[in-house]
Amino acid sequence: MKAIAKAHTNIALIKYWGKRNEQLFLPMNNSISITLDRFYTTTSVSFQEDLSSDRFLLDGEEVGGKERQKISSFLDLIRNTANKQYFAVIDSVNQVPTAAGFASSASGFAALAAAATKAIGLDLDDTGLSRLARQGSGSACRSIYGGFVEWNKGERADGVDSFATQILDENGWNVSVLSIMVEAKQKKVLSREGMRRTVETSPFYSGWLESLETDLVGTREAIQRRDFEQLGMILEHNALKMHATTLGANPPFLYWTNATVEVMQRVQELREVGVEAYFTIDAGPNVKVICQLKDEQKVKEGLQSLNCVQDIFLCHPGPGISYLTT
Amino acid sequence: MKAIAKAHTNIALIKYWGKRNEQLFLPMNNSISITLDRFYTTTSVSFQEDLSSDRFLLDGEEVGGKERQKISSFLDLIRNTANKQYFAVIDSVNQVPTAAGFASSASGFAALAAAATKAIGLDLDDTGLSRLARQGSGSACRSIYGGFVEWNKGERADGVDSFATQILDENGWNVSVLSIMVEAKQKKVLSREGMRRTVETSPFYSGWLESLETDLVGTREAIQRRDFEQLGMILEHNALKMHATTLGANPPFLYWTNATVEVMQRVQELREVGVEAYFTIDAGPNVKVICQLKDEQKVKEGLQSLNCVQDIFLCHPGPGISYLTT
Repeated sequence: MKAIAKAHTNIALIKYWGKRNEQLFLPMNNSISITLDRFYTTTSVSFQEDLSSDRFLLDGEEVGGKERQKISSFLDLIRNTANKQYFAVIDSVNQVPTAAGFASSASGFAALAAAATKAIGLDLDDTGLSRLARQGSGSACRSIYGGFVEWNKGERADGVDSFATQILDENGWNVSVLSIMVEAKQKKVLSREGMRRTVETSPFYSGWLESLETDLVGTREAIQRRDFEQLGMILEHNALKMHATTLGANPPFLYWTNATVEVMQRVQELREVGVEAYFTIDAGPNVKVICQLKDEQKVKEGLQSLNCVQDIFLCHPGPGISYLTT
Repeated sequence: MKAIAKAHTNIALIKYWGKRNEQLFLPMNNSISITLDRFYTTTSVSFQEDLSSDRFLLDGEEVGGKERQKISSFLDLIRNTANKQYFAVIDSVNQVPTAAGFASSASGFAALAAAATKAIGLDLDDTGLSRLARQGSGSACRSIYGGFVEWNKGERADGVDSFATQILDENGWNVSVLSIMVEAKQKKVLSREGMRRTVETSPFYSGWLESLETDLVGTREAIQRRDFEQLGMILEHNALKMHATTLGANPPFLYWTNATVEVMQRVQELREVGVEAYFTIDAGPNVKVICQLKDEQKVKEGLQSLNCVQDIFLCHPGPGISYLTT
């Protein structure tokens, strides 16, 4: 009753921003992402009859408290479905440097969902895995698939229709994603709290939702047509709109630092000299820059000359879930 | 037929952002400002029978083209009201360093309205002057008065009810306004164009308008009660909301640079150590910081230690229109 799975992290081009149900991780809007080759989590799950509780090892160290409790609650969903009440040893290794500004929760819960269901003998298809991973961390539902992925928010209150599907596989369009690290400090407003405050108090939240349909249609179309300029224009504007909503929240907050704005400006300067690069920013100060393969060295050079840039990680579209043999 | 008037510039605490009628300078929303003692325009207007066109001198230099045309069109309003078709020599001196990030148009059109009407023999009260100055530059209608001023947007299509009134005179509450100069470069999107694009395309503009009533009520109340914390919290949030609307515009734009964000962060850090300071930002990269008189040195020191700060101008509430004798 043991299995090992590997899942990659992903970066949202159209942002997941706001939940309609916090318990079930049901989003207010669809989102679109690229799964990335460079950052991943490998997790082994072993259900054992003789355990009296779950054990969670993260990067080789035993983890307790709230973090283990979150893992156990997630495994409960699986145990209840399989109707098998064994505890498990979960051994998880993150190849997601915190410094890169990626959350490891997406790859983490995707790998955990895959390994745990396989170990306990549940045979879930990708849709089932995506729906399950969503209940550990929303964006994890997108990491089940490789390449370009869309998370359909669904309409149902129980979340059965809220899961991701693949738009284009990782070999379909090899764009470059540069993760620009400007600051390793912990962000002040966690994305969960930031989403909640924005949904509840920002006068801009309804405008955000209203403008999304156009962004989604345009992004799908750009991916199908491999229209990089259209993709870039939409994803950059979408990120700006997401961050605009936080300025309306009460109290207002901003994930950007001066370094974030410096990188944003440099990306726009690169475009002015003909290098097609676009930025996106998640719930923190780091910036991800997306460009075509042919431009990645030019973009890298243009950004690493900034004093505020501490490190650059070069990524490309990566695969979905895979299983490893022990 | 000559008169000289002096008018001071003003800084909006609740922003004027968006016109409902561009020709008449009719705003979408009420705004509240402080008239400042340090920056002003002195303008002399002399109507003369023997002139064949208007002459406009700005800081001693003859100005032609569009700028003079704008002045002439404004004087036409006055000539038509007075039913006297004389041309004029307008001699205007700005004590408003462009570098300070203040528009000289507010003090400029307020002084011009006062000097020209007096010179031509029209006896306008403050309301009439405010209504007239508005038709040269919207925010000029607030510079007729000293201290804390509100521009009532009005409801009428002809703009007759769109003018400013005084909330509290310049001796009523002596707060400090530090104008933080971070960059002298010309802004890329002029406020007129920025407003228009935002009103027409930003999904956040309706949220901006909806949230204003609460800001206005709270600001009036804070001024009446001399409640500095309430004033500061509202004005800072109002500025953030105004700038959020530009991120939604199509194409999006941002008046901030990395230096702007650095100053914003420093102001928030000052608050964390107990110094009550709040920022506001207009359609450009410079920041204005508002604090109580007792804190102005602490705030100045906290800001001038930043490398990005080039200059700091210390201001206080200033008077309304005054007339000088030749």
